[in-house]
Amino acid sequence: MRYNYKLTISYDGTDYSGWQVQPNGTSIQALLQQALQIVIRETIGIVGSGRTDAGVHAAGQTAHFMCSEKLDPTRVLHSLNGILPKDIRINGLEEVPLSFHARYSAISKVYHYHLWLERVASPFVSRYRWQPPARVNRTILAEAAQLFVGTHDFTSFANEAHRGSAAHDPVRTLQHLNVIEQEGGVRLEFQADGFLYKMVRNLVGTLIEVAAGKVPLQTIPVLIAAKDRRLAGPAAAPQGLFLMEVHYP
Amino acid sequence: MRYNYKLTISYDGTDYSGWQVQPNGTSIQALLQQALQIVIRETIGIVGSGRTDAGVHAAGQTAHFMCSEKLDPTRVLHSLNGILPKDIRINGLEEVPLSFHARYSAISKVYHYHLWLERVASPFVSRYRWQPPARVNRTILAEAAQLFVGTHDFTSFANEAHRGSAAHDPVRTLQHLNVIEQEGGVRLEFQADGFLYKMVRNLVGTLIEVAAGKVPLQTIPVLIAAKDRRLAGPAAAPQGLFLMEVHYP
Repeated sequence: MRYNYKLTISYDGTDYSGWQVQPNGTSIQALLQQALQIVIRETIGIVGSGRTDAGVHAAGQTAHFMCSEKLDPTRVLHSLNGILPKDIRINGLEEVPLSFHARYSAISKVYHYHLWLERVASPFVSRYRWQPPARVNRTILAEAAQLFVGTHDFTSFANEAHRGSAAHDPVRTLQHLNVIEQEGGVRLEFQADGFLYKMVRNLVGTLIEVAAGKVPLQTIPVLIAAKDRRLAGPAAAPQGLFLMEVHYP
Repeated sequence: MRYNYKLTISYDGTDYSGWQVQPNGTSIQALLQQALQIVIRETIGIVGSGRTDAGVHAAGQTAHFMCSEKLDPTRVLHSLNGILPKDIRINGLEEVPLSFHARYSAISKVYHYHLWLERVASPFVSRYRWQPPARVNRTILAEAAQLFVGTHDFTSFANEAHRGSAAHDPVRTLQHLNVIEQEGGVRLEFQADGFLYKMVRNLVGTLIEVAAGKVPLQTIPVLIAAKDRRLAGPAAAPQGLFLMEVHYP
């Protein structure tokens, strides 16, 4: 028999080389696979909903794995948390149909990006916020954000990993991009049916250039239409980014 | 001429050996003195409102230093933040009368202690919360906390540094001890005219023993009256503790 399990995972990405197994550095996926193999005594592969880069955090990453024995989810969850470092926590483990795939079954994802906009940073949030190098106009930021909402070809905001692939469709629907005030700055809430590689960080980098007055608001539709990564702003730093939720039907 | 300056400082204590200069490890006081000497080009000594132990945080530690030249506080503040590591931030710098002393002029202090009470910890707050090893009854916790409020001899909750000193007065007035619900647990807010060495952590450790049902509520007045450190609970972990404010007349 084969059984399929879905994991919900949170992690502080500061000290990791990202989600995906890498030749150098410690990945979250590799640590999870090691921990699972200790607990269920079977060699398994974990499939994530998508990669997160070095320094990026997750409050609701999802993954699935198949194994040959039925598990006691509560027991396995607590055993995994006993083995894993404190900056990686399993928040959920449940049996799912064999047809469930963490990546291909996903219908939408939510990312949050946290900006620190005060002059003096807080020592408690410097791991989790990006302090842009320029003065940000919040009104322009909120207005600019709305220009990205909708269905677009996001090629101008996607890095290599996806642009190189001819089979890849760069059209995504950004369902919302809300700018929410919070202590010390703002939080940008992105929801889309999917995100291209580095898309959130590239959108944030471009938004900051606009909100800092370096690029006019009217340029945004031009940047989108150009389908050229070189024209848009640089990627925002990884530590402001959190993968919050992955939605399934 | 002599000038006196007051600093307001926040720090993430995780990676430091505490406030006070120590033979081993890096102290926050030592890093601040080094940074100040670079900026004002004068050998100075910084006097804090009190020490914080290794792993303890501060959102509003205060200190003073004297120097022979008049400073531009805004310039010095930003220079210091440019030199200091990101987990130590200067939030304020102002000239004060020569009579001001960060420790002896203080009339009260506020500490917060953060408890994580959910079964699975959050990777984003494990540096800033203590997860007690026992199940905590919040109603008993709030009731027990009130038994410490008022003027008492807190010898049972003070560690060596103060007990050894015959000249030291162990009577303190705990003005309030509020238990506030917050995400994942509770925050204990302490305000007193002063705190003995490790007093907050020892009070929290004792409160947890009571709230976990290991020690009856009625024992608290007995523990206070006993004036014996050996009878009260063990100290709670340092990472839950924040020095929030130091008040001056």
